Parts: sequence; C-alpha cells; structure tokens
Amino acid sequence: MFNKAILIPISDKRNFIFKYYINFNKSALKYAQCIRDLTCPAIEHFFLPLHPYPMKQLNNHRKIVLASQSPRRKQLLEDAGFSITVRATDVEESFPDHMPVREVPEYLAHKKALAAITNLSPDELIIASDCVVILEGVIYNKPADYHDAVSILKKLSGKMHEVITGVCIMDHQKTSLFSGVSKVFFAELSDEEIGYYIEKYQPYDKAGAYAIQEWIGLCKIKKIEGTYSNIMGLPMDLVYERLLEFLSEKSI
Amino acid sequence: MFNKAILIPISDKRNFIFKYYINFNKSALKYAQCIRDLTCPAIEHFFLPLHPYPMKQLNNHRKIVLASQSPRRKQLLEDAGFSITVRATDVEESFPDHMPVREVPEYLAHKKALAAITNLSPDELIIASDCVVILEGVIYNKPADYHDAVSILKKLSGKMHEVITGVCIMDHQKTSLFSGVSKVFFAELSDEEIGYYIEKYQPYDKAGAYAIQEWIGLCKIKKIEGTYSNIMGLPMDLVYERLLEFLSEKSI
Repeated sequence: MFNKAILIPISDKRNFIFKYYINFNKSALKYAQCIRDLTCPAIEHFFLPLHPYPMKQLNNHRKIVLASQSPRRKQLLEDAGFSITVRATDVEESFPDHMPVREVPEYLAHKKALAAITNLSPDELIIASDCVVILEGVIYNKPADYHDAVSILKKLSGKMHEVITGVCIMDHQKTSLFSGVSKVFFAELSDEEIGYYIEKYQPYDKAGAYAIQEWIGLCKIKKIEGTYSNIMGLPMDLVYERLLEFLSEKSI
Repeated sequence: MFNKAILIPISDKRNFIFKYYINFNKSALKYAQCIRDLTCPAIEHFFLPLHPYPMKQLNNHRKIVLASQSPRRKQLLEDAGFSITVRATDVEESFPDHMPVREVPEYLAHKKALAAITNLSPDELIIASDCVVILEGVIYNKPADYHDAVSILKKLSGKMHEVITGVCIMDHQKTSLFSGVSKVFFAELSDEEIGYYIEKYQPYDKAGAYAIQEWIGLCKIKKIEGTYSNIMGLPMDLVYERLLEFLSEKSI
C-alpha cells in the first residue's frame, strides 16, 4: 500500500494544506486530515509508504470473541487495534482445593474458554481470561462487602503482592494457554486513604479490592514489575504475540 | 463528616432505593445516586462515615499551578484528585555539557520552576517537571522527524532503557526536588511495527519517540520496573507524598 501525496506548505511550518495527490484513497484522506496541523516532518513522512496495522492481514478473516463482561478488557483489546465481539458466559469460578494458587488463573481461563467454545463459529476464535491477586500464597478475590474491602486493602498496604492473569485463546482446532505475572508494591495506606478510595471508587467488582488505573494505583502504588495491562486484567504484550502466532498458523 | 442514611431494599439485592435519610446533604445525595445500582454491601457501607479526599484539608488554601503544557500531566494530577491551573513558561531545555545524564531531569525541572516562580501569588505553589529517556548513558529527546523517530525506536527495540522524570515543587518559601526512575523493557520491534506506530500515533512530541499509553506501550513493552505514571510524565506516587509533606509544613 503506497499512498503518495504532495503537500504544499502555505505560509509557515504549521500551516500547510493537502493540495494534490496520486493514488488517493480513503485512508490517505483520513491521514492527510490528521497531519494537517502537525509540524513539518509530517510532510516528509507522508511520502513514505503507509504501514498497515501489523496484524491486519493475519486478522482479516477471523473474528475475535471476548468471553468476558469486563469493559476494561474490551478497551485494552480495542486500544491494541483489535475488533472484538463480547460474548460472556456464566462460569462458576471454582477450582480444585489443592491446586497451587499460581495455576488457578490459567485453569479458570481455560474453563471459561471451554464454556464459550460450543457457540463458536468456524471463523471465530475466543479469548477468555482470569485475573487473581496473590499475597503471601493466598488468593484475594472480589471483596464481599465494605469491611472485606477494608480488610483486603489493609493486608496489601506496605507490601508486595502478585497479580497473575491467565489467558486462553481457543478455536475448534487449537488452544493457547499462558499467564502474565506482575509484582505490585503498595505504599503504606492510612485508614483515611482506604476509606476515601473504597467510598469513591466502590471496588466491589475488582479482585484484591482495587484497580491500578484508579486513584489508589496512581498515588499509592510505588512500583510495579511486569506490565500495567496485566494488572488491569489482560497481559496485552503476550496476547498480541500469541494471537500473532495463533493466526499465522494454518487453521480451519 | 458523618452522613447517615437508611436504604431500603425493595425486591432483591440489585434493586433498592434511597428512601429515608438523616443529616442529608448534597454529597450524600450524589453518593446515594451512585450506589443505587450496586449490590447489597453498599447499603452497609453507607452507614459509615464518609472519608473526604485525604489531601483536601491540607490543599484547601493553596492553589497548584502546573508549569507544563502537557495534557497528560494535567490529566494525571486531576485523576489523583488535585485541582490545578496550567501556566506554562517557555524555557530553553539546555543543560551544562558535562552534567551526568541522570541529573538532567531534576536540573531542568528546577529551571522550569524558577522561570515560573516570578509570577506566583503567595497562595500558589508550582509543579514543574522534565522527563527523559536514557539508553546506554545517552539521552533521547523528542524526534526531529520521521527518520529520527524510526532510528530512536530501532535503538530501543529489544532493550531496556530508563525513564527519569524530575519534579520540582516550589513556592516563595521552599523547594522540593526529586525524581522518579523507571526501567522499560521493549520487545523486538519489526520495521512494520515501527512504521505503523509512528504513522498512526505521530510521536513527535514524545521523549524517546513513544508514549507508553499508546499502542506500542500496550503491545510491545514486555515489562516495566517502576511506576506507569512516571513513564507517562509524572511520578504520581512521589508527587502525592511530597505534596502532602509540602502542604503540611508551615508556609507563607
């Protein structure tokens, strides 16, 4: 895809206009509009071939179904450039009693994918995931009520915990199962800070009673080791890489 | 501030209504509206005292002036709960030739604060900052043009670099100067990925030719060590902590 265009500077660096074009098409037009107000280097750049989204060709004929109601996961996938359809299924989030805690997220992601696979068309693939907060070998789920949220945040205060997000990509031919692991270091939280956060942000639907993208993540997390998206609920670097592998293999 | 209210469940856990209240005020109303659709625990919680923003009392009589045009920094401060005024000044971002690179961000933040202090009222304080990308001892600034952006991203590809953001909080009495340091680990970037990113996101105003909150940060950064906000342009955990110190000390 080579879209060539000639841009004519009118008065100064910040004021030029799209004047004449060769091999013009819709994406070039959109592009030209978006660079109109930028500085001079954009002109030079417009003479270069436009690069399509790296996964566009691969992704062309497959539809991605997200088996999760989480608006954060949908947003992450869309920000990464994927078109997705949401089709959540109700799965009981139980796991065998003696399962090592770090294996739970992949187990549950797999379980969710299996529940969704029966309704999957041959041109679709499914992404399912499960995110847990682990502190000192114990999994902390969504808080049951206000007191539970306070108690969880008091435990996380001043300590490091792990966030593990298991992901399962699946179609009728194959399965890719993997996890992102991040360490999160909380600063000491005062009672006022915990009270303020829970009352304002109501983290009752969040594993570990917090979301990193909210006030508490901004002001009271002093370090993470891993990826931010994994702590939000999907390890996007791994999802991108594995989808690339998944879609480049022969299937159907 | 104790806002008490009685909430009456109507039909089931997810369907209740605000029926009767004691010591009712505007913030309680707002609150009650926002919890109407939540699950039962919210009822219990509403009987507890409401916690004000932890910095509200401290912050009451001081105005925070941000000496930066960056919309990202403004957003970070607002998400952290601060009301701010933007008042950017033009400062030449030069530094002494033999200054160790890791000292540059604090030096420039201080320089920007000094340029803004002359117009500061006694009830205001200023926040100025400077963010640099350092790879193998070399600072990478905003790219000059498309080719420069390609060249910077090729250097960052597959390697770890540091992002250091220097911050200066200043009023007419005192100065607080500090930096956030984060390590960023990029996955290998293909030419297609670099081309796609630069063309779509035009990172010409970003140090190191990328922004972590964009596509490249989501799909191609495999780990960070530090805070996400620091890589975006302000180490919010430190800013919050230092502002707390700054505002709790006597001044004026």
